[in-house]
Amino acid sequence: MATTRHRRREAPSLEPVAGNGLLDRRALLRGGVALAGAVGGIGLTSAGAEPLSEPAWTRGPGITTGALNLPSKYEDKVTRIVSNPDAQPRTQHARTPHHMLNGTITPNRLHFTINHEGIPEIDPAQHRLVIHGMVRQPLIFTMDRLARYPMVSRRHFVECGGNSAPMFSNEPVQASLQLLHGLCSTSEWTGVLLSTLLDEAGVDPRASWVIAEGADAEKLNRSVPLKKCMEDAMVAVYQNGEHLMPGNGYPIRLLLPGYEGNMNVKFLRRLMVTNQPAMTYYEERNYSPILPTGKAYRFYFVNEVKSFITHPSFGHSLTDKGYYEISGIAYSGTGRIAKVMVSADGGKSWAAAALQDPVAVKGFTRFRIPWRWDGQPVTLTSRAWDESGNVQPLRQEFVALRGQTQKPVTNPQGFPNQHYNSLTSWGINAKGEIAHVYV
Amino acid sequence: MATTRHRRREAPSLEPVAGNGLLDRRALLRGGVALAGAVGGIGLTSAGAEPLSEPAWTRGPGITTGALNLPSKYEDKVTRIVSNPDAQPRTQHARTPHHMLNGTITPNRLHFTINHEGIPEIDPAQHRLVIHGMVRQPLIFTMDRLARYPMVSRRHFVECGGNSAPMFSNEPVQASLQLLHGLCSTSEWTGVLLSTLLDEAGVDPRASWVIAEGADAEKLNRSVPLKKCMEDAMVAVYQNGEHLMPGNGYPIRLLLPGYEGNMNVKFLRRLMVTNQPAMTYYEERNYSPILPTGKAYRFYFVNEVKSFITHPSFGHSLTDKGYYEISGIAYSGTGRIAKVMVSADGGKSWAAAALQDPVAVKGFTRFRIPWRWDGQPVTLTSRAWDESGNVQPLRQEFVALRGQTQKPVTNPQGFPNQHYNSLTSWGINAKGEIAHVYV
Repeated sequence: MATTRHRRREAPSLEPVAGNGLLDRRALLRGGVALAGAVGGIGLTSAGAEPLSEPAWTRGPGITTGALNLPSKYEDKVTRIVSNPDAQPRTQHARTPHHMLNGTITPNRLHFTINHEGIPEIDPAQHRLVIHGMVRQPLIFTMDRLARYPMVSRRHFVECGGNSAPMFSNEPVQASLQLLHGLCSTSEWTGVLLSTLLDEAGVDPRASWVIAEGADAEKLNRSVPLKKCMEDAMVAVYQNGEHLMPGNGYPIRLLLPGYEGNMNVKFLRRLMVTNQPAMTYYEERNYSPILPTGKAYRFYFVNEVKSFITHPSFGHSLTDKGYYEISGIAYSGTGRIAKVMVSADGGKSWAAAALQDPVAVKGFTRFRIPWRWDGQPVTLTSRAWDESGNVQPLRQEFVALRGQTQKPVTNPQGFPNQHYNSLTSWGINAKGEIAHVYV
Repeated sequence: MATTRHRRREAPSLEPVAGNGLLDRRALLRGGVALAGAVGGIGLTSAGAEPLSEPAWTRGPGITTGALNLPSKYEDKVTRIVSNPDAQPRTQHARTPHHMLNGTITPNRLHFTINHEGIPEIDPAQHRLVIHGMVRQPLIFTMDRLARYPMVSRRHFVECGGNSAPMFSNEPVQASLQLLHGLCSTSEWTGVLLSTLLDEAGVDPRASWVIAEGADAEKLNRSVPLKKCMEDAMVAVYQNGEHLMPGNGYPIRLLLPGYEGNMNVKFLRRLMVTNQPAMTYYEERNYSPILPTGKAYRFYFVNEVKSFITHPSFGHSLTDKGYYEISGIAYSGTGRIAKVMVSADGGKSWAAAALQDPVAVKGFTRFRIPWRWDGQPVTLTSRAWDESGNVQPLRQEFVALRGQTQKPVTNPQGFPNQHYNSLTSWGINAKGEIAHVYV
């Protein structure tokens, strides 16, 4: 007993647990720092409290409170990067700036969106959802009726199948996380489980697919296995507490946790229960890349386990050596994140990061690990495992199976491949400058 | 074994479990509805799929994607109600519209704010945090340095001590949840535990209080027990993933989970470690109401266990009888919510609501219970318990201890009392109109 008690109180050593200064993930939690004080600790701050200054904002009244709570003018660079900004009649992508955010959810104003024929301005009083096909009784829902059904709230990511496409380049594209991985975001979604609605319609036992269709101009449609619809699919009505953003499907969208974004049909107006896929444009053309074997990679739905370091990352720089927290995002379309390992020496040695709880099922998991930089060049990499035992593949094995582009391309729109989930690495030089590198 | 399996599959009865149509909280979860289909189920929708209409938004391209993801024009009433809208030189309150929201977090643009001398426009490059007083080494932090410290993300509510003040009126004020309880919101906050910073400064063992001071024009200051600072206090940097809103303390605020909002000092610039409280304006005057006993109610910090039904509530109306989901928010400053009971007959009988997991420590918990309205007058009430065994007091015992105003007052600013945590009830008449009532 005494031994156990002694062990529990002992602060983890501040000796590195992996190459180039990675520390034990528990080293600087409550209790660790106090001990550490004697031997260095975090030691980041200037000792000595200078007299407090009296800047303008302390000397006079501030600005007026408005009906909406708005961000600081000093954060006006924290926006989405939008492709096709002149809104030519083709797709617009708007990407989440992960390197400027922290925590586990994406604020609605920064949630990524992709719309192919603009964002429809739907009047919820006129919008209808129809369930028909191989059902006992076809049903038609107004939004008011739908709001009376039992709801659930769940924190899930949505990720475009084309997210991270620049990572297929055979030379690392020098760009921030926003351009590399910005087509992925996490919200708390609140809505009605699709199983509740399908149960009310009464699904024919011979049915196996559901064709979902949106109310936008292209009537985007996708085929979804009935099994997924009954498992954890949702008709989402609220996003982070408020009604959906139009860019994310207002007034309602299909949410298929962990399945590629395009299948999570926005502006949902129709669910046709059937016994075969519809072979729509997006499943036959856009999301059917040709593999190195010559076969089409088709009807792969799951966004596989993935992670990237957000702090520090491309676009940041390290000002001096000493303590930093390395932090990032991990997620998997097959369940919870089980483990994230971090390397500071390009993959030669690894240390386990702390995972922020509660760890969501198919949602962003924030990972963190303390690190002491000695001012020498380092390479930071993360690698995630999920609860089903899946692991992020190393780059060489990944591109061998899935292909890569033949030359470096700087336009992130130009990559034909999909579903990248290998590693992301940052090379930091002695000046603290950060580049995107492959290891 | 066979018995167990059989029991697990059996759907709960659709017979009411309490007066006026409350159903078992599990009655309409997956599996229940299918069975229910035969005996009525939810039965809300018109059978028969009319031909889908082709409204304007399906016939032509939608609007352009911008750098920010903005709400629908059909949701332009979803804003905060602001007191003192002409911004006379006194306090402005901005209240969260809980009756228009769902889920467990409050979007940043709708988070409540109270500012007494306007919102300072602080340049984070110039802002400093000082820790001094009874410490081994006083410390001064730039925001860049602070960002290198170990962080945590936690979902916590913040509630003004004056939230729900209209509920002290001896006649129920006819107003929505936004006016009754809108000075309370929940965010995922990300920041540095205060214990980490205090450990680095090295707290004198004789110290017992910390005086926190803001950088706004009034330099709002409050005394905080050192114990709370070491327990779960945070210097918050991010709110729902992005940097704090200025109205909520940008660039940094003190976060004291479960303690009254005013103590969660915004624009935090100074923490002085000491051995006595400072007896500041807000602890001596504003938050020292006189109790019926004649004594001042002073240095009570915790926002006690509380709940209210958001759907349906004042401002809504029921269009016809049949199935509805009753849903609301519960929270407690002393820990997790353990149980929420709902009554549809003014407190004569009660049924347990389902709690949305994960249940946060000192954060909003969404509760839900299925209900079938027979079209007769009913009174809906909720009552919450927390994991420490605290329960929302009934109104009679509450006002006996804590007082009430002598006549109905329609200006919600006019109530001198604080920390209401008794019940909230909605009376629904045969037309489906909803009034605020006391039971």
